[in-house]
Amino acid sequence: MTLIVEKFGGTSVGSVERINAVADHLIEKHQAGEQLVVVVSAMSGETNRLIKLAHEICAKPPAREMDVLVSTGEQVTIALLAMALQQRGTQARSYTGGQVSIKTDRVHSKARILGIDSAKILEDLALGRIVVVAGFQGIDDGGNITTLGRGGSDTTAVAVAAAINAAECRIYTDVDGIYTTDPRVVPEARRLKSITAEEMLELASLGAKVLQTRSVEFANKYRVPLRVLSSFEKGEGTLITYDDETNSMEAPLISGIAFQRDEAKLTIRGIPDHPGVAHTVLGPISESHINVDVILQNASEKGFTDLTFTVPRGDYEASLEILQRLVGELNAQDVKGDDKIAKISVVGVGMRSHSGVANTMFKTLADNDINIQMISTSEIKISVIIDESKLETAVQALHAAFGLDKESG
Amino acid sequence: MTLIVEKFGGTSVGSVERINAVADHLIEKHQAGEQLVVVVSAMSGETNRLIKLAHEICAKPPAREMDVLVSTGEQVTIALLAMALQQRGTQARSYTGGQVSIKTDRVHSKARILGIDSAKILEDLALGRIVVVAGFQGIDDGGNITTLGRGGSDTTAVAVAAAINAAECRIYTDVDGIYTTDPRVVPEARRLKSITAEEMLELASLGAKVLQTRSVEFANKYRVPLRVLSSFEKGEGTLITYDDETNSMEAPLISGIAFQRDEAKLTIRGIPDHPGVAHTVLGPISESHINVDVILQNASEKGFTDLTFTVPRGDYEASLEILQRLVGELNAQDVKGDDKIAKISVVGVGMRSHSGVANTMFKTLADNDINIQMISTSEIKISVIIDESKLETAVQALHAAFGLDKESG
Repeated sequence: MTLIVEKFGGTSVGSVERINAVADHLIEKHQAGEQLVVVVSAMSGETNRLIKLAHEICAKPPAREMDVLVSTGEQVTIALLAMALQQRGTQARSYTGGQVSIKTDRVHSKARILGIDSAKILEDLALGRIVVVAGFQGIDDGGNITTLGRGGSDTTAVAVAAAINAAECRIYTDVDGIYTTDPRVVPEARRLKSITAEEMLELASLGAKVLQTRSVEFANKYRVPLRVLSSFEKGEGTLITYDDETNSMEAPLISGIAFQRDEAKLTIRGIPDHPGVAHTVLGPISESHINVDVILQNASEKGFTDLTFTVPRGDYEASLEILQRLVGELNAQDVKGDDKIAKISVVGVGMRSHSGVANTMFKTLADNDINIQMISTSEIKISVIIDESKLETAVQALHAAFGLDKESG
Repeated sequence: MTLIVEKFGGTSVGSVERINAVADHLIEKHQAGEQLVVVVSAMSGETNRLIKLAHEICAKPPAREMDVLVSTGEQVTIALLAMALQQRGTQARSYTGGQVSIKTDRVHSKARILGIDSAKILEDLALGRIVVVAGFQGIDDGGNITTLGRGGSDTTAVAVAAAINAAECRIYTDVDGIYTTDPRVVPEARRLKSITAEEMLELASLGAKVLQTRSVEFANKYRVPLRVLSSFEKGEGTLITYDDETNSMEAPLISGIAFQRDEAKLTIRGIPDHPGVAHTVLGPISESHINVDVILQNASEKGFTDLTFTVPRGDYEASLEILQRLVGELNAQDVKGDDKIAKISVVGVGMRSHSGVANTMFKTLADNDINIQMISTSEIKISVIIDESKLETAVQALHAAFGLDKESG
């Protein structure tokens, strides 16, 4: 018997028909000899319905009670799915987060999982039951209901898989896997058979919203084999692997190209230079809960420095106001901004053992007459900021230049 | 500080507006110096919505999963009410049945409460919080969610009141108290200031559906002062007291008149008499889950006996079929039936110390030309079966004959 965790999101269990389809799917796997734990989200629309109810009562509902409220969403799904399985003659049991002791910290609405008591789950599996667990929810050490935040069901699935040492954790989504880049921009984009967790984390944080970042971090930490599949069509999906399992000499140079529109760039120029300039400028930005992404400080010249950084485009106006205030306070020269920029990143663990990736990237962009405004790198990623109007050309050119349209080893 | 438990049913919390109204009411009581625990039901309509969902998946949903499903109804209400209280600046905390350890037996959908851990509730009360507890639900010794069956929130409220030794348990309903009889039949019917639990139990089992029988039994067992009030208008309601607190010499002779339409009567005649005839006839009825109420076995004559009993009218046809089958098996004479009968009961602890109640009852009915078909008595109750067409006349005449329209001591 192979021990498997499968996770279905809100759309996959969004109606009685969909729940029945999931039950049919599970029974097929179960009869093929898999021991199954299923993690499910609230039926699509349900969480929003509950949040709307709360907002009719409070502008800012208290977080503890919000968690009590929204956690009912998954509880409804686990009961209905367990019923659908039993209706088909298969033994099944549903559990809330609290019932299988998904212990979290006390941060309501964004709790982190600390541990899971797997005894009940393993006992049920041994009796031949399919175990249905509510995603997204847990309890803290005071027995209060907590939730993991939106998308937290992925994390629940991975945490359960780690706790019971499952052979694989399968996340069913509305896409059939991870692609080399967005197929809407590059029609030649190809589904990857596998990708390392490290690459996945770089891609996820760059806007490939297939898996919740935290679930990949969790999977990475506990080395849980994670597979992303479509809940609507058959297929192998994409398997997320771990660096230590891969001979990185054989890994493809680049696994994928991520990009993000809706970025904006701001520069405050001619700041009298002294230690702590970056903090003085970025402190007020961060206090306004604006996430700064790429940062560039020009080498100081004649005692003055320029600081450039990018923010989400929605925060552009607010950032501009803060900088304009700072110009006076810091006796700086002026502020410039551009809210028509985009970010492109090439990601691949192969970079570690191959030189020349940056060179290929820069040459490809130059050949296509695309100006690089900012550069940022990590061990397995190179990001550039370019004019938004050049985004599609750039992604298509880089996809071809790195041979991503061709099946690799 | 006075320790009070208040319970609001589904209609009283059926909308955001109603929940806000309950919050306003509670804060008024809280500011007047009451320490409050509130027990609430699911918003009206919610339980039926969930049951409907389940039935779309299964004809006969498994009871364990049904409890997981429907218990979300109260969980939504406790969260919303706690939010509404906090929105008004009052500290409040919600708890599911499991969270305050409302321990029950394992009988899903009809569980009985075995005990409550009051520590958390008392701790919160000491901190000045209003405690909001989900009615209707508990957990068994395996941590499985159980429900107490329809109307079980009353029982939860009484059990919580008993566990924390509350000064009073107030059940808010859609009526403003217990009446001497149904005011739709007798306009002179009067709200009782108090009634004994014993009388209340006789009335409840006879069709006065204000309080769930089990909650009154529970209140009686633990001597919880129970008050029934309207959630829509102000008033003192009716207080349920206990025999040992009342000098029954001063108690009114009769407290109320209950009646039940929709009864049916069946007689199997000429059964060859031998020990166990009643069992032979009523066994198959009971095995068909039909509740037999009044039973009358005529004195045996020449070795033959007649057995008459009443059943709910909805079970009349099924009972008739069973008896017709038995006529052959038992070699009895024939079966007769009447599905146009009704039952009237006069109830009062005063009967214990006063004679003549039966006599007054029989004389009143005779004076009004009403034929008594069957009689059944208990220590504090006399019931008669009469023709349904005479029901209203009978109730009105008895109400007047026992002086129930006049305020008593």
